[in-house]
Amino acid sequence: MATLFTQIINGKLPCYKIAETDKYFAFLDINPNAKGHTLCIPKEAVDNLFHLDETTYHGLMAFSRQIAIAIQKAIPCKRVGMTVIGLEVPHAHVHLIPLNTMEDARFLNKEKLTDADFKAIAAAIQAHL
Amino acid sequence: MATLFTQIINGKLPCYKIAETDKYFAFLDINPNAKGHTLCIPKEAVDNLFHLDETTYHGLMAFSRQIAIAIQKAIPCKRVGMTVIGLEVPHAHVHLIPLNTMEDARFLNKEKLTDADFKAIAAAIQAHL
Repeated sequence: MATLFTQIINGKLPCYKIAETDKYFAFLDINPNAKGHTLCIPKEAVDNLFHLDETTYHGLMAFSRQIAIAIQKAIPCKRVGMTVIGLEVPHAHVHLIPLNTMEDARFLNKEKLTDADFKAIAAAIQAHL
Repeated sequence: MATLFTQIINGKLPCYKIAETDKYFAFLDINPNAKGHTLCIPKEAVDNLFHLDETTYHGLMAFSRQIAIAIQKAIPCKRVGMTVIGLEVPHAHVHLIPLNTMEDARFLNKEKLTDADFKAIAAAIQAHL
């Protein structure tokens, strides 16, 4: 069974895409902690970040860095936080979260956004890539 | 004024050290979310992770990966989470947190440990490096 994220990569499930390379994919978290909350994933569906081979791990970190720098330019925030948890979807994913307060990093308060909001946020981040 | 973490690196403040290279340093978080919660930092006191130069960023990620793999072997947990927030100490730091539940990732529940506990945890992780 393909992971939720593999289905997103393959276009079987919709997403607000930010960027894609041959090995990595970035899209907006649909249940964001804050505006601009983005997920960066390897196309390879490995569950645990630290079970990725070293090359893929470093590629994911380089990809995430590029996306984070674009988010910092596009979204008003104190800084962009990076979090990998992975207790829910078994496909390694890097959360990039625009932070203004510690609450934005806790995955408790969620931002309600419309389809138009998500599209505008994705376009704003892409404009800085 | 040297950051809190620079004072730790320089031995002006005590810590439970895990590992050190010429450019990076790892030690136990003194107010841990869970047993084995470790901080990995560059010796260079740059505030924002994404303002580190590319080489230092990748070096920090490589160092953090090695420490995380040792923590996974030493500390019973579902996986090791990785989080960079940085709203408090202005010196970029990677939190590596042994996770069993989502609560371990929220920075709300804290584990009370004794000096002997910290020493035993540091030794257990070091044994896998």
